[in-house]
Amino acid sequence: MSDTAVIDTEQSERAYEIDGTLIDAVLDAVEAGDRDTLVQLLEPFHAADIADLYEQINPKERSAFTVLWGADFDGEVLAEIDEGLLDNVIEDLPDEVVSDAVRDMDTDDVVDLIEDLDEPQQERILDALNTPDRVAVEQALQYPEDSAGRLMQRELVMAPTHWTVGQTIDYLRKESDLPDQFYDVVMVDPRLTPVGKVPLSGLMSAARKTKMSEIMDEEFRTIPVMQSQEDVAYAFNQYNMVSAPVVDEDDRLVGVITMDDAMEVLEEHAEEDIKRLAGVGDESLIDNIWSTTGRRFPWLAVNLATSILASIVIAQFAETIEAVVALAVLMPIVASMGGNAGTQTLTVAVRAIATKDLTAANALRIVRRELFVGLFNGFIFALIIGLVGYYWYGSVMLGVVLGIAMVGNLVVAGLAGILIPIGLDKAGVDPALASGAFVTTVTDIVGFFAFLGLAAVLLL
Amino acid sequence: MSDTAVIDTEQSERAYEIDGTLIDAVLDAVEAGDRDTLVQLLEPFHAADIADLYEQINPKERSAFTVLWGADFDGEVLAEIDEGLLDNVIEDLPDEVVSDAVRDMDTDDVVDLIEDLDEPQQERILDALNTPDRVAVEQALQYPEDSAGRLMQRELVMAPTHWTVGQTIDYLRKESDLPDQFYDVVMVDPRLTPVGKVPLSGLMSAARKTKMSEIMDEEFRTIPVMQSQEDVAYAFNQYNMVSAPVVDEDDRLVGVITMDDAMEVLEEHAEEDIKRLAGVGDESLIDNIWSTTGRRFPWLAVNLATSILASIVIAQFAETIEAVVALAVLMPIVASMGGNAGTQTLTVAVRAIATKDLTAANALRIVRRELFVGLFNGFIFALIIGLVGYYWYGSVMLGVVLGIAMVGNLVVAGLAGILIPIGLDKAGVDPALASGAFVTTVTDIVGFFAFLGLAAVLLL
Repeated sequence: MSDTAVIDTEQSERAYEIDGTLIDAVLDAVEAGDRDTLVQLLEPFHAADIADLYEQINPKERSAFTVLWGADFDGEVLAEIDEGLLDNVIEDLPDEVVSDAVRDMDTDDVVDLIEDLDEPQQERILDALNTPDRVAVEQALQYPEDSAGRLMQRELVMAPTHWTVGQTIDYLRKESDLPDQFYDVVMVDPRLTPVGKVPLSGLMSAARKTKMSEIMDEEFRTIPVMQSQEDVAYAFNQYNMVSAPVVDEDDRLVGVITMDDAMEVLEEHAEEDIKRLAGVGDESLIDNIWSTTGRRFPWLAVNLATSILASIVIAQFAETIEAVVALAVLMPIVASMGGNAGTQTLTVAVRAIATKDLTAANALRIVRRELFVGLFNGFIFALIIGLVGYYWYGSVMLGVVLGIAMVGNLVVAGLAGILIPIGLDKAGVDPALASGAFVTTVTDIVGFFAFLGLAAVLLL
Repeated sequence: MSDTAVIDTEQSERAYEIDGTLIDAVLDAVEAGDRDTLVQLLEPFHAADIADLYEQINPKERSAFTVLWGADFDGEVLAEIDEGLLDNVIEDLPDEVVSDAVRDMDTDDVVDLIEDLDEPQQERILDALNTPDRVAVEQALQYPEDSAGRLMQRELVMAPTHWTVGQTIDYLRKESDLPDQFYDVVMVDPRLTPVGKVPLSGLMSAARKTKMSEIMDEEFRTIPVMQSQEDVAYAFNQYNMVSAPVVDEDDRLVGVITMDDAMEVLEEHAEEDIKRLAGVGDESLIDNIWSTTGRRFPWLAVNLATSILASIVIAQFAETIEAVVALAVLMPIVASMGGNAGTQTLTVAVRAIATKDLTAANALRIVRRELFVGLFNGFIFALIIGLVGYYWYGSVMLGVVLGIAMVGNLVVAGLAGILIPIGLDKAGVDPALASGAFVTTVTDIVGFFAFLGLAAVLLL
């Protein structure tokens, strides 16, 4: 089963990346005010790529670009663009372009758009909609921001269970107001409670006279309208769902969520975890210098506070350090190893909590594992660093102190790395957000205290 | 647009999480050898949930569980289970259970299964397949491990462009060997080159006599069979695709990739980035103490090497520290702030590279941004830490040294955090894997050197 060919990574690196020369050509056209060239350049591109192009150019260029493109603006770009840019782009667009764009969208996309806008632009969008769509959007906005209700679309295809395949197909052929894309027919009882689902592929391959109730899949999942979007995404991923009916508290069908929406949420949440672990919030590449400085400040401030705490610990041993200056040279090693080991454990823990793999049922086993991993790696690195310390400064006792402090700090790192995220999660705090600061505070303080404290006792 | 209701987080926390009492009940049944109870307990659960259950129990329990469940084993569990557990589970299963399970799968799932198995278990699976499926699977295994060819399924629905909607539907009704789920009919020319796509929803709502060529979507994307899976996932996400035809070098249709497969790849890669950034490789919760110790060792070893480098820098200033012990107390603050600021920048950079948002076109602008963010946050924290140093030790000069070192290190952190990932990416190295070690080495060394070096010049 050996590989017979290799992926061409050089080509692969470039796949789907916007070509720099395209960007230059677009900017040239914008500067020259040459609208025909601009329209022609953009013609072959997908809205998502044009949205990416927006992120690659600077704010002044963005505005000039939007204004020049104007009447030919591809409305779908609005659904794809970074939310931070949306307000300005819509402000720069003529009313009729915004109206046309919004009228073509499914309600879930309109809701997604409006969520990210300021009041005046929200009004412009709502005014552009026809009454039923406006009501649908306003209803969706009544649901909490992070709920299934905000994610679902109202447009869906449902049928009563007594229909045949032929009746359903005839209905679909007649009905003009179908969703842009749909994958299932939701079967409902007279109270509008979903009782089954018929995937289009099933509908397609059955004879016309077949009863829908015969081919319907009764093992389907409904999504409660108040469920969190994170749980919705988890369910789609866990159960390989393509679309799912959404129901209200009375179990009545109110909408449908499709996999593309769930995929977006899933990706957003993984992205959020990565960034929160590094203390950069929901920063993006389009943020300017000021907002980036502001977003990174809080985490650096927390880190300053914790490193001052660590310094206070060191200050208690000033005399010891004055007596043996080697301690100052070696002490950052112990603290740094603890910080890294702690980060390893907490990253695994944070992701396992997010994917619901770390539960009350296996927490004890995992804590035990971390304890032993800390011990074993602690012993190995204690031996290495002990020898380094001994050779460097010719003192056996210094090596012993380094070694003991290393074992201690790696064990503490493992335990802090698992117990702090579990504790934060239980307390209702996002473990991705706060674990890092707590864990490194613990490993810094324990690292410096164990090393310098032992040195004070054993070396002086 | 205020929220009128709040998501019930208490309930939400529990959604889709395996109930601890279920696990206990299952383990009791396994211990008692009570197969009827076991089968009855598992009956309501989705294969994906049972796969999760496997991850929650220990290796001995897993084996006893598999053996007892035996003939009733749900074959779909094999497609869902953590790859690290697969070999053992299959080993514990009777031949006919494995054969039945494999015969029900689409070829892409069989390939996915076989990839993760050792040779003897691979043979068992291949032997269970009928000849055409076996050939299809063996062909798929000829493609490189991370390619579209491994991800695609052979089962697909295609039609020539001259067919009508009615002909296509009749064909679908007659054909017995259709894929489990499909979303599009791929339109091909006589050379089997894809020329368009008709989504089932479009097929459904058109009249029987309509020509397929009239309703087919010509703006579709084909995936080259040798494209990397990461790029495939990017394309599905970027262009909201539900399924895409895969073509060989001669542009001939060889398979189809569906969104659920792309979603899995997308999630895996985000997960991989998170874990690589923290230096834990592809560790999972089911790893035992030994393999976890082994997986974390390399990163800790790298970190040991870089912190010894930093110690060597400190050692050059041993005399300075002996003269002013306050330096030993304060120096970790400068290094730690640099490390954190560097990690912030590199995390944003690594993700922006992965999502193709950071390109040659905007790299310069982003580097400039990082430079200024480093400067601005540097000045703020220089002021704070300068005052702290002054009040603590009553020396204006010490405060000045701290402040200058802080500004310098935060600027260096910002530049290292963006330039190192860009450089690694250009060199063909995964920036998520190696950036962290390089960046903290830089910030440690610069932090200690700037602070102690300035102190040696200005304070002595």
